[in-house]
Amino acid sequence: MPLSAPDPSAGSAPRTVAQKLLADHLVGGRMEPGEEIAVGIDQTLTQDATGTLVMLELEALGLDRVRTEHSVQYVDHNLLQTDEKNPEDHLFLQSAARRYGLWFSAAGNGVSHPVHQAHFGRPGATMVGSDSHTCAAGAMGMLAIGVGGLEVAMAMAGDPLYVSMPEIWGVELTGELPAWTSAKDVILEMLRRHGVKGGSGRIIEYHGEGLRSLTAMDRHVIANMGAELGATTSVFPADDEVRRFLAERGREDQFTLLVADDGASYDVTEHIDLSSLEPLIAAPSSPGNVTPVREVAGEEVHQVVVGSSANPGLRDFAVVAEILHGRHVDQRISLDINPTSREILADMVRGGWLTDLISSGGRIHQSGCMGCIGMGQAPAVGRNSLRTMPRNFPGRSGTDEDSVWLCSPETAAASALTGRITDPRTLEDQLGLSCPVPRMPEDPKVDPDMLIAPLPVEEAREVELVKGSNISTLPEFDPLPDALDVPVLLTVGDDVSTDEIMPAGSRVLPYRSNIPKISEFVYIQVDDTYPDRAWAAEGGHAIVGGENYGQGSSREHAVIAPRHLGLRVVVAKSFARIHWQNLANFGVLALECDDAAYRAAAQGGRLRLRGIHDALRAGTEVPATVVGDDGEHQVTLHHRLSARQVEMVLAGGRIAQRAAAEG
Amino acid sequence: MPLSAPDPSAGSAPRTVAQKLLADHLVGGRMEPGEEIAVGIDQTLTQDATGTLVMLELEALGLDRVRTEHSVQYVDHNLLQTDEKNPEDHLFLQSAARRYGLWFSAAGNGVSHPVHQAHFGRPGATMVGSDSHTCAAGAMGMLAIGVGGLEVAMAMAGDPLYVSMPEIWGVELTGELPAWTSAKDVILEMLRRHGVKGGSGRIIEYHGEGLRSLTAMDRHVIANMGAELGATTSVFPADDEVRRFLAERGREDQFTLLVADDGASYDVTEHIDLSSLEPLIAAPSSPGNVTPVREVAGEEVHQVVVGSSANPGLRDFAVVAEILHGRHVDQRISLDINPTSREILADMVRGGWLTDLISSGGRIHQSGCMGCIGMGQAPAVGRNSLRTMPRNFPGRSGTDEDSVWLCSPETAAASALTGRITDPRTLEDQLGLSCPVPRMPEDPKVDPDMLIAPLPVEEAREVELVKGSNISTLPEFDPLPDALDVPVLLTVGDDVSTDEIMPAGSRVLPYRSNIPKISEFVYIQVDDTYPDRAWAAEGGHAIVGGENYGQGSSREHAVIAPRHLGLRVVVAKSFARIHWQNLANFGVLALECDDAAYRAAAQGGRLRLRGIHDALRAGTEVPATVVGDDGEHQVTLHHRLSARQVEMVLAGGRIAQRAAAEG
Repeated sequence: MPLSAPDPSAGSAPRTVAQKLLADHLVGGRMEPGEEIAVGIDQTLTQDATGTLVMLELEALGLDRVRTEHSVQYVDHNLLQTDEKNPEDHLFLQSAARRYGLWFSAAGNGVSHPVHQAHFGRPGATMVGSDSHTCAAGAMGMLAIGVGGLEVAMAMAGDPLYVSMPEIWGVELTGELPAWTSAKDVILEMLRRHGVKGGSGRIIEYHGEGLRSLTAMDRHVIANMGAELGATTSVFPADDEVRRFLAERGREDQFTLLVADDGASYDVTEHIDLSSLEPLIAAPSSPGNVTPVREVAGEEVHQVVVGSSANPGLRDFAVVAEILHGRHVDQRISLDINPTSREILADMVRGGWLTDLISSGGRIHQSGCMGCIGMGQAPAVGRNSLRTMPRNFPGRSGTDEDSVWLCSPETAAASALTGRITDPRTLEDQLGLSCPVPRMPEDPKVDPDMLIAPLPVEEAREVELVKGSNISTLPEFDPLPDALDVPVLLTVGDDVSTDEIMPAGSRVLPYRSNIPKISEFVYIQVDDTYPDRAWAAEGGHAIVGGENYGQGSSREHAVIAPRHLGLRVVVAKSFARIHWQNLANFGVLALECDDAAYRAAAQGGRLRLRGIHDALRAGTEVPATVVGDDGEHQVTLHHRLSARQVEMVLAGGRIAQRAAAEG
Repeated sequence: MPLSAPDPSAGSAPRTVAQKLLADHLVGGRMEPGEEIAVGIDQTLTQDATGTLVMLELEALGLDRVRTEHSVQYVDHNLLQTDEKNPEDHLFLQSAARRYGLWFSAAGNGVSHPVHQAHFGRPGATMVGSDSHTCAAGAMGMLAIGVGGLEVAMAMAGDPLYVSMPEIWGVELTGELPAWTSAKDVILEMLRRHGVKGGSGRIIEYHGEGLRSLTAMDRHVIANMGAELGATTSVFPADDEVRRFLAERGREDQFTLLVADDGASYDVTEHIDLSSLEPLIAAPSSPGNVTPVREVAGEEVHQVVVGSSANPGLRDFAVVAEILHGRHVDQRISLDINPTSREILADMVRGGWLTDLISSGGRIHQSGCMGCIGMGQAPAVGRNSLRTMPRNFPGRSGTDEDSVWLCSPETAAASALTGRITDPRTLEDQLGLSCPVPRMPEDPKVDPDMLIAPLPVEEAREVELVKGSNISTLPEFDPLPDALDVPVLLTVGDDVSTDEIMPAGSRVLPYRSNIPKISEFVYIQVDDTYPDRAWAAEGGHAIVGGENYGQGSSREHAVIAPRHLGLRVVVAKSFARIHWQNLANFGVLALECDDAAYRAAAQGGRLRLRGIHDALRAGTEVPATVVGDDGEHQVTLHHRLSARQVEMVLAGGRIAQRAAAEG
């Protein structure tokens, strides 16, 4: 069901950066908040933890070659290789990149988002990525959106991205950051003000003179963690700083000026005076639990981890090194350093910073996501771990009862020195230390040797996919019945993350290409009887959730695996954007409820729906019967599916719909 | 039962280095091959995978403070931290080191053996370590023996080491190594000649003018992998090179000249002309499968791993870096680099070698054992992984059907460049490359900051042990009955390693301080029904093995865990030294059999022993009845226990014996 053609008059009024990006790529729909629009996609990004499924989806779609400007397959998540599963996934991904015409970034090259910004980021481009932090590319004046793997696969196949037109949220930055604060404190301030749902349904567009003091990699930090606000994405203008960034990497020819028109207006407005910020920290176990560091200073710390796509640039390591220079971390501390990329590691060597980090007691790990995705570096139970990473959802570190805090590299370094949570400003008095301002090299390392270029198409067609024994094919899902009478097998509260639905970590991530196996781990941190009960409940089941259900990552495993176990309906007060889209893509009905309906459904009885097909097609209301301990309740649930999505869900999801259309 | 007092006349004849070391520390017994002797111990080494049990044993012994010159607890094995178990073990070990007066080498400081050589190695000293590669310290003119954890605990408590007096095997080295060969090729030549049992019951003593071209760290490579020959240990003289090594580390005052007397004679003699060696490689899956590299050249390679205590020195990384300098590894290769220690990593930075390794595509991992103990870096099934490590037992890499080869850093680097097993000498023609001779710094990095010194005794007594939930107490074992009638639950062939009995790797190692849990993994690679069958067989069971049963590591878990499952007797054609000692320490009867008895027992029937106590005390023969499919066989088995050990085994092991004596 095609959307209406774009309105050519949409370009006449003064526009913001986000509006320009959208308008320039609009292939369907109207740019009114809430309307479904179709956006053409220039680039895609996949990483190994989600990419194996994407490659299997390309295979299922019968794609011959990607139709994007650039599609890049990164290997940065599953790097520990505790058995053959990870390395065999890497071999599979490399073969799929060769087969379908993708770039391949080999294990050790670095974390996808900053590597992508450095090598492929281009102002004015659009990108989808099967990683929720894909939005980091907004730092370059790109419109980059984290989505489920299937939508990345469809973009590779040349389809547009369908998305509900977001509001544009203009955040004006003025002033300059004080000493001992950095970009991380800006995004922590946004999280302090708005929490993990504050950006829902919005594109955050940063503007104002405060941008002048934020480098392209500082902006990456801020855009990256826009995912934690629940935003559709974040964008920055492509200004002189972006030009400088491209120039120092020998890519100035790819620069295009992209700034908001004078007089452009935002749907929502906000102002941050950078000079008013202080060191902030997100307490366990949500990026939204932000508080000034000084208010929690003194708590004993067990581990400090520096790295991840939210600590992407050389500066973020150099400042840690310069704070630690000539000193040693406290004996209680394990200081774990995860260089973002081999390029940055090489520059850390050249600048003397790596030597400082080694001498001060840092454990230098391979370049990659590492502890950020629970791949090693788990802390002890209940002991404080300070991390420069974007997320601290419960258990994401690999330890069930973890106590993870999120902070700037400055706060991390200060706390490593003292063994306690420490406001870095106090180092001036404690150690007579001035805030270091690391001097960046004018010629940063540019080393594309581990980015393997796509094969010529004729050669690519000869490539066979290399499938290890852990790589299964995708399960097939049947259409949505017109009536459901299913048990509610699980009830959860607000802000349940995809880390809780489908855990990551070294035990589970290796099964990312094996749906039957990974299904055994669904929701085990919440209720380890769920997988068995779900499998036993023939005829399907329902899950009931609170607000912001499915926040966090883009992993479609958090839908495919419970769907494989029989999940048919999720009833929640509200849904996180990517997870909601993934539910639709795989034919699971996402229905919104009010408090009264939640209370009734949360009793864990049964859910009855009749005439589903007509109801979905007719409007947004879906009448239902909830059977609780106290009897039957007639409730009205709501869906937000577009007409296009209704048909997709009824067919059993996007792949099933396509197969039915072809069959 | 005390041994006879040492014979004071033993010092009169010309003596070898090994004989001097033994005589200088002899506190009981006669130095005749095969006699049990008691040797005073100066130093101990424990690592984290075995050390948690040792610390629990100290607790069980009620020790107040170690009585050695130095006891050092290293953390180098369990570094991945996929959940809370590893970091909580580290905290426990740090607290135990504080409590009992040990040095503590924190995670990230490096691999125990080379770090110990650098900071504590002292000519003339004796050492036991709960790691089979403890023998590496022989490079310094030390007598260093890998033993089970309980023997290390007893040494800490001031007890001597009881050991069967080995033969002294003099290996004369002459000439100089040709270009493109290095120390690894020397020990591979020993393994090529003698296999994995060739050193059994022997101390290997290297001597001759060929030593002049071997540095202290080259000698470490050779002494380290003496463990693979099954030797009790290896020793080198403390000569000018050892003096130089100590001097460059600021410890020349700890040098003592220790060389063999003129006219000293060896029980067995051997000669290696270094100039005749060529690059060698051990094929899967035994260190004894040695062949010239040229004979297997051309096989496709998937992974190259450089590191471990068998690749201990800066040179071994520098030579790889210089071979790779300005080039990039083949696109098929994952090149994994595990720096030995933070000191060596710092020197790799200083010398420019780390930059070469990064630029050529190396994944730089944290300092530690890593893939050598199956902590990450597992290869794909059936694809060749070349490693500079000491062992390639089946599955040790973490991959069940692995294909691991052992080689020099030169061969590893050459193969990484080409993507195929490559004789490094062919690089001269292929690339016009001369064999690099890296220039070592005259002032190597000396950085003791992550070696935490023992607390003063009064302060130490206040320390409480920090026990995470994964740290269990030791199970108690009952005395050996006078009669046994038990099923043979498992029959295995020759050269079964402790990696097969008690797997290492990231899935199992975290349970090293939890005997009930780790017991679920005993022998699972060989027969995954064994743990359940053993647990179900009340009244105990037996295992039957071939030659060299229990080769490999010192892990006493390979005894305690099956003992916990009910193992009472192992009948084998012969036993590896450390494992045999561990069986005795925990009250499991180790009996040797001939081929006929093996064939009868291998049918998996029952084993009946009567009058065990008298038989063990009376001599070496133990009559037994083996019940096979073809009826009953009367056989005579043999034991090698000393009178002291007989009482220990009868009591149920060394701890039970001590408890009985005190109770």
